[in-house]
Amino acid sequence: MDLGAIVTETWKELADERGSGNPARYIPALASVDPRKFGIALATKEGEVFCAGDADEAFSIQSISKVFALALALERQGAALWDVVGREPSGDAFNSIVQLEREKGIPRNPFINSGAIITTDRFIDDRTPDEAVDDLLGRLRRMGRDDTISFDPEVARSESETGSRNRSLAWFLADFGRLINPVEDVLSVYFRQCALSMSCRQLAESALFLAVDGTDPVTGQRMCSASRARRINALMLMCGHYDNSGQFAFEVGFPGKSGVGGGILASVPGRAAIAVWSPGLNRAGTSLLGAKALASIALKTGWSIFSGQWTEP
Amino acid sequence: MDLGAIVTETWKELADERGSGNPARYIPALASVDPRKFGIALATKEGEVFCAGDADEAFSIQSISKVFALALALERQGAALWDVVGREPSGDAFNSIVQLEREKGIPRNPFINSGAIITTDRFIDDRTPDEAVDDLLGRLRRMGRDDTISFDPEVARSESETGSRNRSLAWFLADFGRLINPVEDVLSVYFRQCALSMSCRQLAESALFLAVDGTDPVTGQRMCSASRARRINALMLMCGHYDNSGQFAFEVGFPGKSGVGGGILASVPGRAAIAVWSPGLNRAGTSLLGAKALASIALKTGWSIFSGQWTEP
Amino acid sequence: MDLGAIVTETWKELADERGSGNPARYIPALASVDPRKFGIALATKEGEVFCAGDADEAFSIQSISKVFALALALERQGAALWDVVGREPSGDAFNSIVQLEREKGIPRNPFINSGAIITTDRFIDDRTPDEAVDDLLGRLRRMGRDDTISFDPEVARSESETGSRNRSLAWFLADFGRLINPVEDVLSVYFRQCALSMSCRQLAESALFLAVDGTDPVTGQRMCSASRARRINALMLMCGHYDNSGQFAFEVGFPGKSGVGGGILASVPGRAAIAVWSPGLNRAGTSLLGAKALASIALKTGWSIFSGQWTEP
Amino acid sequence: MDLGAIVTETWKELADERGSGNPARYIPALASVDPRKFGIALATKEGEVFCAGDADEAFSIQSISKVFALALALERQGAALWDVVGREPSGDAFNSIVQLEREKGIPRNPFINSGAIITTDRFIDDRTPDEAVDDLLGRLRRMGRDDTISFDPEVARSESETGSRNRSLAWFLADFGRLINPVEDVLSVYFRQCALSMSCRQLAESALFLAVDGTDPVTGQRMCSASRARRINALMLMCGHYDNSGQFAFEVGFPGKSGVGGGILASVPGRAAIAVWSPGLNRAGTSLLGAKALASIALKTGWSIFSGQWTEP
Repeated sequence: MDLGAIVTETWKELADERGSGNPARYIPALASVDPRKFGIALATKEGEVFCAGDADEAFSIQSISKVFALALALERQGAALWDVVGREPSGDAFNSIVQLEREKGIPRNPFINSGAIITTDRFIDDRTPDEAVDDLLGRLRRMGRDDTISFDPEVARSESETGSRNRSLAWFLADFGRLINPVEDVLSVYFRQCALSMSCRQLAESALFLAVDGTDPVTGQRMCSASRARRINALMLMCGHYDNSGQFAFEVGFPGKSGVGGGILASVPGRAAIAVWSPGLNRAGTSLLGAKALASIALKTGWSIFSGQWTEP
Repeated sequence: MDLGAIVTETWKELADERGSGNPARYIPALASVDPRKFGIALATKEGEVFCAGDADEAFSIQSISKVFALALALERQGAALWDVVGREPSGDAFNSIVQLEREKGIPRNPFINSGAIITTDRFIDDRTPDEAVDDLLGRLRRMGRDDTISFDPEVARSESETGSRNRSLAWFLADFGRLINPVEDVLSVYFRQCALSMSCRQLAESALFLAVDGTDPVTGQRMCSASRARRINALMLMCGHYDNSGQFAFEVGFPGKSGVGGGILASVPGRAAIAVWSPGLNRAGTSLLGAKALASIALKTGWSIFSGQWTEP
Repeated sequence: MDLGAIVTETWKELADERGSGNPARYIPALASVDPRKFGIALATKEGEVFCAGDADEAFSIQSISKVFALALALERQGAALWDVVGREPSGDAFNSIVQLEREKGIPRNPFINSGAIITTDRFIDDRTPDEAVDDLLGRLRRMGRDDTISFDPEVARSESETGSRNRSLAWFLADFGRLINPVEDVLSVYFRQCALSMSCRQLAESALFLAVDGTDPVTGQRMCSASRARRINALMLMCGHYDNSGQFAFEVGFPGKSGVGGGILASVPGRAAIAVWSPGLNRAGTSLLGAKALASIALKTGWSIFSGQWTEP
Repeated sequence: MDLGAIVTETWKELADERGSGNPARYIPALASVDPRKFGIALATKEGEVFCAGDADEAFSIQSISKVFALALALERQGAALWDVVGREPSGDAFNSIVQLEREKGIPRNPFINSGAIITTDRFIDDRTPDEAVDDLLGRLRRMGRDDTISFDPEVARSESETGSRNRSLAWFLADFGRLINPVEDVLSVYFRQCALSMSCRQLAESALFLAVDGTDPVTGQRMCSASRARRINALMLMCGHYDNSGQFAFEVGFPGKSGVGGGILASVPGRAAIAVWSPGLNRAGTSLLGAKALASIALKTGWSIFSGQWTEP
């Protein structure tokens, strides 16, 4: 299978639809992005990376960062993380607080906002917010093979200014005694993590460990155990797109995590990691063209984890 | 890989734990089953079937029947079925009515009871209840390669007698105009479908189409399109174990559907179908030993769809 | 104070607005009522009755019947009734099932449908449905001073035919073991009770016991204890108009119970009972003109229980 | 009727039960109050005040302050206040956030915490927090006829330190754009208002306007219109005790507002205002002995607004 051709062909097929969907507009930095941006990067476990379009342009990865935060929080806390955050789909919107009240401050999973806030808190652990951010950046720079990977301070500031709902969620968690750090410390890391700027290429390379049992096959760096990589893949499939996860699982068939900046990161266990970017979102907040691109790649490669048409990995 | 040895070994490893968990006791027919029963059957796409323990003894498949009902309803209704039932995890218990009120009588997915009742209604379509049951039995007998497959009339009667919650759900759906058949007609099929008696071997053989793009590789019978098989696999993974689906996805990593009779049916896309049976349930209503057996097989085969350690399918 | 003049004047002031609001249309018998009907009857504890407009024309009292059913169920069961039905406002719509699931089949109060279904069940007690209906009719005939008071069989039939939501509620209660009679028996009484035909005059006379500590001051018949009359008044004020009860309490200031047929029954503790009828409803399902008439009478008499401007009762 | 004797007798009857119930312990200042404190004050519209026990000792009025905040917010905003806060019972606990999400940031009523936070915000209006607190204190000092009435800074500080849930509610409201002042400004007034220290005598005198159509009959000071006094009475009855309001309405039959410090303020329309204080709370957070004392006074006076046994007001 010529993966390079598949990536290029997929990009071309969809290029005419650039600009479809509705970009997020709640902060100026996202609203001002060119809605016609469209990039694809596919990194294989063999170390190859195939790109198309704006795959080397950095964008705001937003909630995709929750995947990395989860891996790093698990590294620091081990399974104790699961005492304060669940591992089941929520059936509610990404920022719902209803479930949190019913279940006494235990978020359903690490990918809804409340769960991600706890995850960030546990990743910070006993460090200062700045130390935690530095640690996160260091990891991503190594895995993304680029020392300039950073967060956009303007976006982080906007996130904080418009972050009333996240503040409400964080104080709600605090009321149940679920946070070990002060609310504003946790949020200061959370907002910076959401403001990370990365390109499709960097994202795909950084996430390859998920597809290969926790170790980056290129650098040999171990990010997590095989069991944890499997766990994160399962969570991405079950909960990676809020209340649209079922639809994504069917249409695409890869564990994935979307961000409101228009990026989607997908893991193809045993094979590859794929990142796509197109700012226009569907009603569930997932990149419209991005999901189409992944569905097309899944079809062309036969890699859907639900498909009977296997090719040798 | 010696699949026969894997099945046998898995059974032996767990045999000492027979009787653990709590069998369902809400109807006499389930309460009286020997809690130490334990069977495994693995049917490969190449046509081999490997069995261990009580794999040839029929048991009440209960909610596993929802998988077959879904395939058959899709066959009759096509995608129009999705107008009245969703495809997302529910985040609620199997018999919750809360979501149904909030979302105006559209159940979240076909595997919670309300969704299964609509699915059965659409499978009946314009036929009599008895015609629909006959059709279902005919299909299962062909796919399970046994003309004696039937439902247990005693169990069906008990289901009906204790079926107040399901009646409530059905009338709730009727209130929203979601049913095309009378409530009691729908329930009469639903209760018989839940009372189906099948062995692990029959279940595994009957469900092989899910793993092989919709067509039984042995008989060549086409049960559904490749796309629908993928859809059903995705739904089983996302919603097959109610609010324990995330845990099952991680521990096992196969699309699966559990029944309160202690059976679990799993589909391994591209490879096999597996059925296990042990009456003792965990707190979420899934067979305790059954889930352990599937997790063990997933580990030994490396077949988890979330694992990076592939073997050639 | 010339109560007769107040009643007449109130009717005249509002007569031009007859036909405003939206009559219930879910059953033919209600949809076909002349929307311009408008009646008022005020019965004092001294035995006088002041009427205006269509006060002697019978109409479908619908949920107003819940008040009588409650008084009679309390008579049969005593305080044990409160083991299965609460006494607090619900904050939900009249037919919501959400609260019922959260609180394990204990309805919030006897005036939401689920609570009324339990109340009817306990009023039936160990009798046949027909015996219970006969008992209810006998009581109302004595209190309403008219031996022809009855239910409309056509309305009762329609209620049953369109009663899917009430069936769902009843089966839900049955699932929690809250009913002592078979679901369809309970509903057969419930639907007939909702189909009672009474005039404003009859209603006001029948309900006078609520305003006078449980005993009809005219006939001397004791309907309930002073404490229970107080309890029913409190419940009418708190819960008599579903999620519009607060607004009614402020605008009118009398304990009241509305019916979807356009009737409202109000109790003025220590003074009088008032019944109004006008089929057009507001968005909360309460008679639009009826509520205005009661507010006007409350203002003219100074009888609001929340007002500082008392006149001697 | 000898009201002085009724007050004294009620106190004596219940004196042996002092110490029953559970005082609030979430902040040190409340936990350290002598649980055997018990005071009653009854202020009539004629200007008499009858006291018993610890009626002149100041205590933390907590949520009783919501009544004064509501009156003052209505004075500043008029009916526009009702655009952002409802007037119906909530059916939920005092600090629930579920309803708030469902109804898009409009709290059900001004007496649940979220509603009280909005009310305080609108009372602050375009002033600084300190100006608003000074205004509130000035009013209470005039109405309570004591220039030393103030808030307890230690309690206010503790409220703020333990106020995570209230912070969460406030940020939730902010997310829906419901607050006109910064969250921490609103909370700084809210926490001080909850920390007001007043005696039963001061409370009863301050609240007399509610019973007499909005104007203090002693000083002649107009606090609000007759219509608003009626509205506040109705809200106190419907919502003054969270999800125990129905029980209180029946047992006592006065509009009332409880505070977690053990105080209850009751308005008897047309007659009097009554304040009671005993720190031990029932399960719903209302003073156990306080509610009993009010029920006893209601019985002795025949003043329950739901009773048929009137005496001339």
